[in-house]
Amino acid sequence: MPGSAETSPPEQKVAALRGVSCVVLGGGGFLGMNLCRSLASCGARVRAFGRRCLFPSDLDGIEWCQGDFADGAALAAALDSCEIVFHLIHTNTPQSANLDVPRDALQNVIPSIALLEASRKLAVKRVVFVSSGGTIYGSAKDLPTPETAPTNPISAYGISKLAIEKYLALYEHLYDLSFRVLRVANAFGPFQLPIRNQGIIAALISRALRDQETEIWGDGSVVRDYIFVDDVVDALHRAALDQSDLRIFNIGSGQGRSVRQVVAAVESQLGKKLRIKETASRAIDVPISLLAIQRAEETLAWRPATPFEIGLAATIDWWRCRKQPGAPAY
Amino acid sequence: MPGSAETSPPEQKVAALRGVSCVVLGGGGFLGMNLCRSLASCGARVRAFGRRCLFPSDLDGIEWCQGDFADGAALAAALDSCEIVFHLIHTNTPQSANLDVPRDALQNVIPSIALLEASRKLAVKRVVFVSSGGTIYGSAKDLPTPETAPTNPISAYGISKLAIEKYLALYEHLYDLSFRVLRVANAFGPFQLPIRNQGIIAALISRALRDQETEIWGDGSVVRDYIFVDDVVDALHRAALDQSDLRIFNIGSGQGRSVRQVVAAVESQLGKKLRIKETASRAIDVPISLLAIQRAEETLAWRPATPFEIGLAATIDWWRCRKQPGAPAY
Repeated sequence: MPGSAETSPPEQKVAALRGVSCVVLGGGGFLGMNLCRSLASCGARVRAFGRRCLFPSDLDGIEWCQGDFADGAALAAALDSCEIVFHLIHTNTPQSANLDVPRDALQNVIPSIALLEASRKLAVKRVVFVSSGGTIYGSAKDLPTPETAPTNPISAYGISKLAIEKYLALYEHLYDLSFRVLRVANAFGPFQLPIRNQGIIAALISRALRDQETEIWGDGSVVRDYIFVDDVVDALHRAALDQSDLRIFNIGSGQGRSVRQVVAAVESQLGKKLRIKETASRAIDVPISLLAIQRAEETLAWRPATPFEIGLAATIDWWRCRKQPGAPAY
Repeated sequence: MPGSAETSPPEQKVAALRGVSCVVLGGGGFLGMNLCRSLASCGARVRAFGRRCLFPSDLDGIEWCQGDFADGAALAAALDSCEIVFHLIHTNTPQSANLDVPRDALQNVIPSIALLEASRKLAVKRVVFVSSGGTIYGSAKDLPTPETAPTNPISAYGISKLAIEKYLALYEHLYDLSFRVLRVANAFGPFQLPIRNQGIIAALISRALRDQETEIWGDGSVVRDYIFVDDVVDALHRAALDQSDLRIFNIGSGQGRSVRQVVAAVESQLGKKLRIKETASRAIDVPISLLAIQRAEETLAWRPATPFEIGLAATIDWWRCRKQPGAPAY
């Protein structure tokens, strides 16, 4: 895929991850699919754990472990003999989490603590957690927002992510369980499906290819930090191997784009006008979300290597392949 | 009791709280007992809710409502027709919380979210939450520590308190449920019992009066911010009535004291040498905890009015009365 070759010398990655046992919690989802495939290509032994796998045929050579995150026995089985745990599970979207706040905590915070309990008792060497760059800061005063900014989420989703970050730090303090947190911005790319109102780019492309209308919240002025999934996966590799004194890293593109700009970019690449329907804006949408990424650049020697247009082209290619006869329809 | 008359004009308090329906969650405990009695003396209609009341005869004129915090029906009944909810419950101590981290979240965070759900659906006008000034910051770099300092707890207790603070802010954002948070330092005074390793001052006094040895962790150099309970109660009153734009207030004495200094002060007032046994220091004990209190002073027009020695004398008096024939023994 584009971009990753430049910043992540494959030979280094392969050397560091070859033969390492990893489990990807949420391995059947968007980010998880991409991560599993990348880890496997580096020679890691990869197990994917989750409720369901959206693209089973794309997980060749990867052990699939079906289970519910809240099922302690299933989780312990998935963790067994793994050195690195990538924790990518969240049962809600930022939108749906607020509809039942107690359930969001029950389904995500509590099982994440159980994961840490199991990890410290098993042979886990490090937990890499995907947190939320878009919700954890709330309405940030500093833009781009650094990792040291106040964390005042305005969604249950963001609070759960924050609480899990704090429990990770506690388990390192109490039990020397190593961890890294990536506060990831709005990731996009292959294997992202526009389900549960997630993934504006996936929604725009997939609906445009079927000449369908796409609903957006508000007038399209909301600014987000869109980052191509290969760059996120690269950061996850680096977080797994990092030996610095830092624990939490923003992972974003370094550039803000309004929904309107994203629509224009998709229109430009598809060569046609999209049908957009504006609906009421939402209480959880901060006007602008943009992450400062100097820490990851300096400490992880990482950078967002994929220009937005290149990532968008790769995503459109993926959707076009999926639309061919014989491919499943979404 | 000493101190409160100077900073809390009784006539103002009475006017503001007379006839107001309040429920004190945790009303049977140390801080709750003091708060209930003070609210009742202001003419508020007071209901105390909790698993047990340690001093039932001292809750004259206060409605006692026995129940478990995790019992949604019992909690809803306790909240019924109350305007102000004081949330003082935590099922663990900072020490015991780390022994079973998942349970601490289940017993405290989850029911606190349920409390907020119930509060927004009932007629509750404000939730005043007692958070933890001693654990929420972790090992703070800034001393005295202001409310804006990073919050990196090294105990599950502190993480639960922090998560609850964040959910309070979320419920205000989503549902306009008003709240205030007091991050209270090490409170001491009448009705505090040295159970579950809490309350070094209560432990020192009660054991000295029985000529018993007291165990302390470490060499006594750990510095804490001890505040007399009357001053905390005064801050709770003010938090219930505050109309400012601020939400979170540190409540401490403004002065740090080592355990050794506390021992010396107790020895001085009792006129005898205490028997102290030093044991191993604990992973959860930060070396120094001291809160910056300018925000509460400026915004709530509050100040810690009780000199440490005066509070200590009042506490010793209380223990001496309790030790008289006919009084229950602890």
